[in-house]
Amino acid sequence: MEGTAKYPEFNDLEILVKQGSDEELREFLGLVHPADIADLVEQVDEEGRRRIFTLIPRSVAADVLPEIEDHVLDEVIESVPDERMVHFVEEMDTDDAADLLAELTREDRRRILARIDASDSEEIRRLMGYDEETAGGLMQTEMVAVLKDATVSETIEEIRAQKDEVENLHFVFVVNEDKTLEGVLDLRDLILSTPERKVSEIMDPDVISVKADMDQEEVSNLFLKYNLISLPVVGDSGRLIGRIWFDDVMDVIEDEADEDFLLMAGAGEEELEELSVFKSVQARLPWLAITWVGGIVTSIILGHFEETMKEMVALAAFIPIVMAMGGNVGTQSATIVVRGIATGKIDYKDIGAFFFGQVAVGLILGMIIGMATATFVHFRHSAIEFSVVIGCAIVSVMGFSALVGTFLPAFFKRIGVDPAIATAPIISTTCDIMGIFIYLTLANLLL
Amino acid sequence: MEGTAKYPEFNDLEILVKQGSDEELREFLGLVHPADIADLVEQVDEEGRRRIFTLIPRSVAADVLPEIEDHVLDEVIESVPDERMVHFVEEMDTDDAADLLAELTREDRRRILARIDASDSEEIRRLMGYDEETAGGLMQTEMVAVLKDATVSETIEEIRAQKDEVENLHFVFVVNEDKTLEGVLDLRDLILSTPERKVSEIMDPDVISVKADMDQEEVSNLFLKYNLISLPVVGDSGRLIGRIWFDDVMDVIEDEADEDFLLMAGAGEEELEELSVFKSVQARLPWLAITWVGGIVTSIILGHFEETMKEMVALAAFIPIVMAMGGNVGTQSATIVVRGIATGKIDYKDIGAFFFGQVAVGLILGMIIGMATATFVHFRHSAIEFSVVIGCAIVSVMGFSALVGTFLPAFFKRIGVDPAIATAPIISTTCDIMGIFIYLTLANLLL
Repeated sequence: MEGTAKYPEFNDLEILVKQGSDEELREFLGLVHPADIADLVEQVDEEGRRRIFTLIPRSVAADVLPEIEDHVLDEVIESVPDERMVHFVEEMDTDDAADLLAELTREDRRRILARIDASDSEEIRRLMGYDEETAGGLMQTEMVAVLKDATVSETIEEIRAQKDEVENLHFVFVVNEDKTLEGVLDLRDLILSTPERKVSEIMDPDVISVKADMDQEEVSNLFLKYNLISLPVVGDSGRLIGRIWFDDVMDVIEDEADEDFLLMAGAGEEELEELSVFKSVQARLPWLAITWVGGIVTSIILGHFEETMKEMVALAAFIPIVMAMGGNVGTQSATIVVRGIATGKIDYKDIGAFFFGQVAVGLILGMIIGMATATFVHFRHSAIEFSVVIGCAIVSVMGFSALVGTFLPAFFKRIGVDPAIATAPIISTTCDIMGIFIYLTLANLLL
Repeated sequence: MEGTAKYPEFNDLEILVKQGSDEELREFLGLVHPADIADLVEQVDEEGRRRIFTLIPRSVAADVLPEIEDHVLDEVIESVPDERMVHFVEEMDTDDAADLLAELTREDRRRILARIDASDSEEIRRLMGYDEETAGGLMQTEMVAVLKDATVSETIEEIRAQKDEVENLHFVFVVNEDKTLEGVLDLRDLILSTPERKVSEIMDPDVISVKADMDQEEVSNLFLKYNLISLPVVGDSGRLIGRIWFDDVMDVIEDEADEDFLLMAGAGEEELEELSVFKSVQARLPWLAITWVGGIVTSIILGHFEETMKEMVALAAFIPIVMAMGGNVGTQSATIVVRGIATGKIDYKDIGAFFFGQVAVGLILGMIIGMATATFVHFRHSAIEFSVVIGCAIVSVMGFSALVGTFLPAFFKRIGVDPAIATAPIISTTCDIMGIFIYLTLANLLL
C-alpha cells in the first residue's frame, strides 16, 4: 500500500455498499483504514451509512466518527441507532467524544450523554466546558500517569492495565502525590531500564506544560517550536488534567491556516468543507457589502471632481491603475502581517520596525511604478503636468496603502481581535477611497 | 515552565552572552531548550555566536543548528570553526545534516563533507540528492529495523544498540531478508510482550509507506488523514530506505500554507523570515509589473471610450465599484480553489461541479450588489437607462470574475504548475480589464 491505505479500490467499495452481501462488505471494510471508511460514509446514502455502522466493530467506529466532516455528521448520527451510538461514544477518546457531542443538537446530545457510563459522561461534560479553540478543547483525559517513586516494573503494569484505554502511548507522565506534574518518561527509556529502577531516576524533569485556557494557535506554535509529540495540560495548581496529542495539533495548524486564508479573502472557512451556494453567498456578502459601500463613497468623491474630469477625460483612464496598485500593495502588507502574527514569525513587539520597512517597500515600489506610468503618460498624452500628477499620485497611494495594510491588522491585534479580520475587501476598499482622493486632489492642484 | 521552555528570562540571556563568564553562560545555556538557544543565536552578534557554540555540548549543538533560520545560517557557520562544525554535523540526524549542508556555499559544503566520517558523508550526500520538497528530502536514515523472525528480546537489544543514534524511537520497522518493509511495531506492544515472542506475531502488517519522489504536500496530507507519527519511505523494489518523522511534516504544513498565502498575495515567502526592504521589493515587483501592464491596457481601453465618457462623466464615477466587485469575487474563488487543491479538500476530479457552484455564487452576489447599485444610481442620477447599465454590468462582471478566479488556478494545476501562481494580482488584473470592457460596452450599447 504505497501512499494510501485504500484497498480495495474506492469505487468498488461504493458499489459493494450498495450491492454486496453483509459478509462481503464486512470483510472488505476490515481491510480499509478508518479514515477511508469515513470518506466512504460521506459518499454513500443513508441506507449505506446504516449498513456500514452496523457492520464495523465498535472500536473501528470510534476511529471513523472523528474523521467525518462536521457538515454530514448530523445526517450520519440520524442513521445510527442511539444504542449503538452510545457504545461508540464510550469507546472514543474523550476529546473526540466531546467534539462529536458538541456538533449534535442539544436534544441528541442530552439523550446520548444520559445513557453512557457515568464517569465517562462526567469527563466528556467537563471537556465540553472548555472553549473549543483552547488547549482544554484539544486535550484528552486518557493518559498514563505514575507516581514519582514508582518502579519501572510498576509502570509497565500500569501500562498493561490501561493499554486498551489509551491509544497512543509513547510517553508516561510522572506526578507526585498531589498529582502535580513532575516529569515525563519516554517508553524507550522504560524498555532499556532494569525493572527495579525508580521512575524519578530515568524521567525527564524538563517537561513543557500549558494551562487549559491557552489559545490553540499558541499551542500549535509550541508544538512547532519544540517539536512536541504530546503536551501535558495542567490546572492552576499545576495538577495534571489532560494531554494534547500531536495529531489534533496538525489539524489545528492546517485549520488555522485555512481560516486566515479564507477570512483574508473575505470568504468563509466552511466553503472549503462543503459545496453550498447559499452558504458561500452568506459568508461573502458582508465583506462585499463593505466593498460596495466603499465603491459608493468613491463614486460620490468622483462626483465632486466632475468638473476636473470633464476638462480632462484622460484623468478617468488612469483611475484603474491607481486603484489596482494601491490595492495590491496594501493586501501584500496585510497578508504578511496577518500570517506573520499568526505563526509567531513576526514578533508583535517588533511591529514598529516592521511598519517602517513595509512603508519603505511601498514607497520604493511606488517610485518604480510611478516613474514607469509617468513615462507612459508623457509619451502617450505629451502632457508633462499630467505625467507628474500620475507619478506623484502612484508614489503616495502605494506608500499610503502599505501603511494601511500594515496598520489595520496590527491595530486589530492590539485591540484583541483576530488580525485576519483586516481582510482584503477592507484593505482594498480603504486603499481605493484614499487612492482616488489623493489622485484627484493632486490633479486639481497641479493641473 | 508553563507554555515555554525559556528559563531564565530571554533578555537576561542576551546580557549574559555579552557580559557573563564562561562558567555562568554554560550553566544557563544548560537550562534552555535547544529551540530557544537557536533564537538566542539569531539575536546575538558574531562574537556571541562563537561563545555559544564553544560552550554547548555537541549533542545540543546538533539540535540547535536545525532550528536556526536559513537567512542567518551562513553567518552562523562563519562563526564556528570547521573542526567543531564537523563534529556537530556528525552528531546531527541525517536529514537535518543534509538540509544544513544544502544551505551552505559549495565551498563550505565540500570542506565539511570531506572531513566527516565516510559512511555518514555518503548517507548525507545521498539524501542531498533528493528534491528538498519530496518525501526523500524529508526522510532520515536513522531508524531501527528488525527482521520479521526476530524475537522481542532481540529487538530490545537492537534498540539498546541504536539508542544514541536514533532520537525518536517510538516505532520499530519490520523487514524481511531483502529489506522489504513488512510491518511496523509499536514500542508499547514490545513492552507488553514476553521476550521470546516473534516480532511477526505482534507487528502491524498494514503499514502505509511512500516512494521517495512523492511531493511533500501529498506527504503532509497523508500524515493529516491517517494521523501518522512516522512514515516509512521505500525504494522502487519496496526496500525500506528511510523514515519521515512527524515534526518535519508539521513544518511542511505550516510552510506550504505560508508559501501559498504569500504567493497568492503576490508577495515572497521569505518576507516572513527576514526583514529586507530590498528582497521584498524584488519579490513583489514582478507581480506589480503584471498589474501595471493590466492598468495600462485598461487605460487604453478607457481611451477608446473617451467620447462615451465625455457625454456622461458619471460613467467614470462607477468604474471603481465595478472593478472592486469583480476583483473581490475573483480573488475569493481563486483563494478557495488554491487552498482546497493544496489541502486535498477539493478533489481536482470534482472541479467541474465546483466550477458551476462558484459561478452561481458570483452571479447571485452580482444580482444582489447589482440591484443595490442600480437602485442607488436611479435615486441619485434619476437615469433609468444608466441604472440598468450599471446593474447589468455588475452582474456580468461578478459572474465572469468568479469564473476567472476558479478557472485560472484549476488551469495551472492542469498544466502541472502550482495553482497558487494564479495570484491576486493576476486574477484582479484579468477581472479589471474584462470588467471595464464589459461595463463600457454595455454603456455604449444601451445609452
